[in-house]
Amino acid sequence: MSDSTASWILAAQCPSLLGTVDVVTRFLKESRCYITEQHSFDDRISGRFFIRTEFRPEAEDFDAEAFQSDFAERAAEFDMTFELTRPGTRLPVVIMVSKADHCLNDLLYRYRTGQLPIDIRAVVSNHPDLEPLAAWHNIPYHHLPITPETKAEQEAQVWEVIEKSGAELVILARYMQVLSSAMCTRLSGRAINIHHSLLPGFKGAKPYHQAYDKGVKLVGATAHYINDDLDEGPIITQGVAPVSHTDYPEDLVAKGRDVECLTLARAVALHVERRVFLHARRTVVFDR
Amino acid sequence: MSDSTASWILAAQCPSLLGTVDVVTRFLKESRCYITEQHSFDDRISGRFFIRTEFRPEAEDFDAEAFQSDFAERAAEFDMTFELTRPGTRLPVVIMVSKADHCLNDLLYRYRTGQLPIDIRAVVSNHPDLEPLAAWHNIPYHHLPITPETKAEQEAQVWEVIEKSGAELVILARYMQVLSSAMCTRLSGRAINIHHSLLPGFKGAKPYHQAYDKGVKLVGATAHYINDDLDEGPIITQGVAPVSHTDYPEDLVAKGRDVECLTLARAVALHVERRVFLHARRTVVFDR
Amino acid sequence: MSDSTASWILAAQCPSLLGTVDVVTRFLKESRCYITEQHSFDDRISGRFFIRTEFRPEAEDFDAEAFQSDFAERAAEFDMTFELTRPGTRLPVVIMVSKADHCLNDLLYRYRTGQLPIDIRAVVSNHPDLEPLAAWHNIPYHHLPITPETKAEQEAQVWEVIEKSGAELVILARYMQVLSSAMCTRLSGRAINIHHSLLPGFKGAKPYHQAYDKGVKLVGATAHYINDDLDEGPIITQGVAPVSHTDYPEDLVAKGRDVECLTLARAVALHVERRVFLHARRTVVFDR
Amino acid sequence: MSDSTASWILAAQCPSLLGTVDVVTRFLKESRCYITEQHSFDDRISGRFFIRTEFRPEAEDFDAEAFQSDFAERAAEFDMTFELTRPGTRLPVVIMVSKADHCLNDLLYRYRTGQLPIDIRAVVSNHPDLEPLAAWHNIPYHHLPITPETKAEQEAQVWEVIEKSGAELVILARYMQVLSSAMCTRLSGRAINIHHSLLPGFKGAKPYHQAYDKGVKLVGATAHYINDDLDEGPIITQGVAPVSHTDYPEDLVAKGRDVECLTLARAVALHVERRVFLHARRTVVFDR
Repeated sequence: MSDSTASWILAAQCPSLLGTVDVVTRFLKESRCYITEQHSFDDRISGRFFIRTEFRPEAEDFDAEAFQSDFAERAAEFDMTFELTRPGTRLPVVIMVSKADHCLNDLLYRYRTGQLPIDIRAVVSNHPDLEPLAAWHNIPYHHLPITPETKAEQEAQVWEVIEKSGAELVILARYMQVLSSAMCTRLSGRAINIHHSLLPGFKGAKPYHQAYDKGVKLVGATAHYINDDLDEGPIITQGVAPVSHTDYPEDLVAKGRDVECLTLARAVALHVERRVFLHARRTVVFDR
Repeated sequence: MSDSTASWILAAQCPSLLGTVDVVTRFLKESRCYITEQHSFDDRISGRFFIRTEFRPEAEDFDAEAFQSDFAERAAEFDMTFELTRPGTRLPVVIMVSKADHCLNDLLYRYRTGQLPIDIRAVVSNHPDLEPLAAWHNIPYHHLPITPETKAEQEAQVWEVIEKSGAELVILARYMQVLSSAMCTRLSGRAINIHHSLLPGFKGAKPYHQAYDKGVKLVGATAHYINDDLDEGPIITQGVAPVSHTDYPEDLVAKGRDVECLTLARAVALHVERRVFLHARRTVVFDR
Repeated sequence: MSDSTASWILAAQCPSLLGTVDVVTRFLKESRCYITEQHSFDDRISGRFFIRTEFRPEAEDFDAEAFQSDFAERAAEFDMTFELTRPGTRLPVVIMVSKADHCLNDLLYRYRTGQLPIDIRAVVSNHPDLEPLAAWHNIPYHHLPITPETKAEQEAQVWEVIEKSGAELVILARYMQVLSSAMCTRLSGRAINIHHSLLPGFKGAKPYHQAYDKGVKLVGATAHYINDDLDEGPIITQGVAPVSHTDYPEDLVAKGRDVECLTLARAVALHVERRVFLHARRTVVFDR
Repeated sequence: MSDSTASWILAAQCPSLLGTVDVVTRFLKESRCYITEQHSFDDRISGRFFIRTEFRPEAEDFDAEAFQSDFAERAAEFDMTFELTRPGTRLPVVIMVSKADHCLNDLLYRYRTGQLPIDIRAVVSNHPDLEPLAAWHNIPYHHLPITPETKAEQEAQVWEVIEKSGAELVILARYMQVLSSAMCTRLSGRAINIHHSLLPGFKGAKPYHQAYDKGVKLVGATAHYINDDLDEGPIITQGVAPVSHTDYPEDLVAKGRDVECLTLARAVALHVERRVFLHARRTVVFDR
């Protein structure tokens, strides 16, 4: 992890076309940037190309702005979108929660120890319960209660917090409200949710109770981007834990907690390290 | 594994009632049988009790018939059903396949090396392809082709093979025909199927293609008993394998093969060792 | 988990002898205690028998003292040692740390949310760094620095903290000092250590650096009881994580943290639920 | 897997130097080859660069010889060694075994179904036992018994079989003889061995018995290249399986078999797909 955020990262995607790798790597060579790690993948079904490059400039006076504008010209020929990330960047995020604290606690720990290079600007919740936890980490906590009648209003407040905070990513760390379609659209591709099942299995409410009813021998969790179809957004990563006949629904809930924490933290780390590419309803994940 | 089939096994279940363990263990003590491994579990939701005991008689002239009839009297007081299994028993089975050979190949290997204490009486298939594989293992192969018109007739033939073979278990090792409701009922609790998904996700046909469409990051397999609701029978065990964006549907199929083999073999081993208890739509599995 | 600590637990061991199960289960029946979960195992190599029983008394005025003294008589005939644990018991513990906070943070979270039924009486460290973390949880923190010259003295102070706290278990949550042989003996069977390797591989200092040098593709952690031979105490549980060529030693350290936390928490949970039996240099673990 | 061997593969390594990626990707662009998957990694500790590229030529009359000789010139400037692999290539191999058949059986299955693109030219064994298995697959079986006195002679015979067969890889699929230092040197980097432990733990003979003595809760297997230091060759991949107190040494042996098969097959697949790079005592593995 340490290494990834210590390097410059160039992440790009475009339609499949001869020279997609070359346009990136030749430019880096010419810019005297040494490539330390690179992945590329061409999806023959969607006809889309993805590339992620970690590099270190040889020159001490590396000019990121010039790099970016010069590369933009070449990228344009390939209809390529790209993002350049500086070393040591901490991604500004807002975390949304309800009452369950395990994912928030885990993210806060990784944040305060620097294991996860995020900058938590605010925690938003429809309940007051987790305020002390945020307070101990000196993070503003916005208690924004919600009722069926005030849903639109509350979401507007949530949105305002997100906007003002400058967050580039929203993390739904067991936020137990169904977002409106409008909110989903606004957050599309900018928010990661943790769902407590192996999607698309057990969509909707109380997945562990559904899992108990079916007598499954594995439970899991899915971290995915929010898009307009709730619980159907592009999957980033999934985790799993064995269970048995001795586990009643409340035991499945308990056993699922660790998997949820790890799966969400993994997804956020992958996102922050620019290892995840989103295209249509799928992700490309250049894991280490 | 070696140890399990080298011991006598008493497996029983009954409604929850004070003394359910005692009725078993006291009898074993009085019969001078030494218990080497025991599991019991009381399911508070269904109000049902399950027990599995491995033991070795101290007496050399242990009389199994007398043991069985004497214990039956005591068990009756608890409305307890039970099964006594001799050491070294090889369970007679029939295996059903179509064209895919990986599960069959795996079961045959474990059978011929004695790793799986089963006695394969016959292989039944709706295709001729796997006949040489069965032949090399000296196992009768019944090619029973099927068409929509001949389904009832073919199932009658299949049933005849099963009956004549004396099989106590039927293993559906990637048999790609949907069994009729009547056949499911006949095989209920007596047949183990391997489904190539993490049920209840991706029921029905082509689960790996469904999984690809959803962009999942894990594929899995489920071994379950057949009951009257196909793909919804009680789950015995499930396995999982990580996949990525580089895996096209045919790659998921390939990656799934090992998981299917291991999951099915595991389920059969658990069944043969009398570690699986069936009650209503659930299983209790006393794994080691 | 919830269920385990909500029940009475009887855990016992003795030499192998006909009637070892019966002596327990008959007594429970006569005491009108309903067994909800039971495991027993007879180790034919060591000739030792182990049993763990969860039960709920039918009588509302269950008399634990009478139960205990009555059972002691019968147990004596089998040279059986046993322990009776009340429902809802929180085991008093002392946690020892140095500078690394991940295991402590994890244990504190599980403690404050009740997921792990322990009562943390004190945190002891040879460094001052983790004091704020303990303070936020209102737990006394004892900073007891150590030098080669003061080792004996410091260990005496540590021992005093443990004794005064009433701790029944000491958790070495990445305490980076080698305990003296005398201290090991004192803590023998009463302390759980987390070692950051798959013991017996990579004993001693800097196991992740050793692992890097060998080019392993998996790193792991081992939770074990302290005995007189450091890093060789009886293993309770082990965990593992995949690594690759991209992981430098500091990355292995980072990747190992989650495995260490989960492995240690798992071992403590198993211990607290009386699922771990210690005999000679081995453990019997009746996992769910 | 299917995809990998359906593409051309260029695998290369050289010292770290600006332009190492560019020299490969620019050439591919100029040769009108479309890159479908690419990984590169620069090891900052060893100062060595590794790259693997899958590509498909746009031209139907792609001239591999010209490609190779033209690229050789450019590669020379970077002191780069490289290998070009045609699509559909089946690597010629020789498999060495003793009496245990599980790994051989597994490799033969993957070979005969085309899952593993290898061409098994011969099976060599110091025992006659596995001849029928090889015969059923129409593979020459060389029974070359060995005694301490005939070791040098036998190894010469083995070497002759390997040489005559044209094998590019030797697979030690549980060959239970210690190879002489001379033989190790000859096979260095050309042979993959499966060791039945998580190396460097439990080197030498009877690792499962060693594991039992230590009371471990996980057993594993290691696939590694042979080099001059037996059991210390560069690790390709490792696998693991949970075990418990119920597993006696013979049970560990049984439980380890599946892990050994899967780990060895995985290593061979990675090698055949040119995903493994060997440098000094380490491997770089560009897994999917």
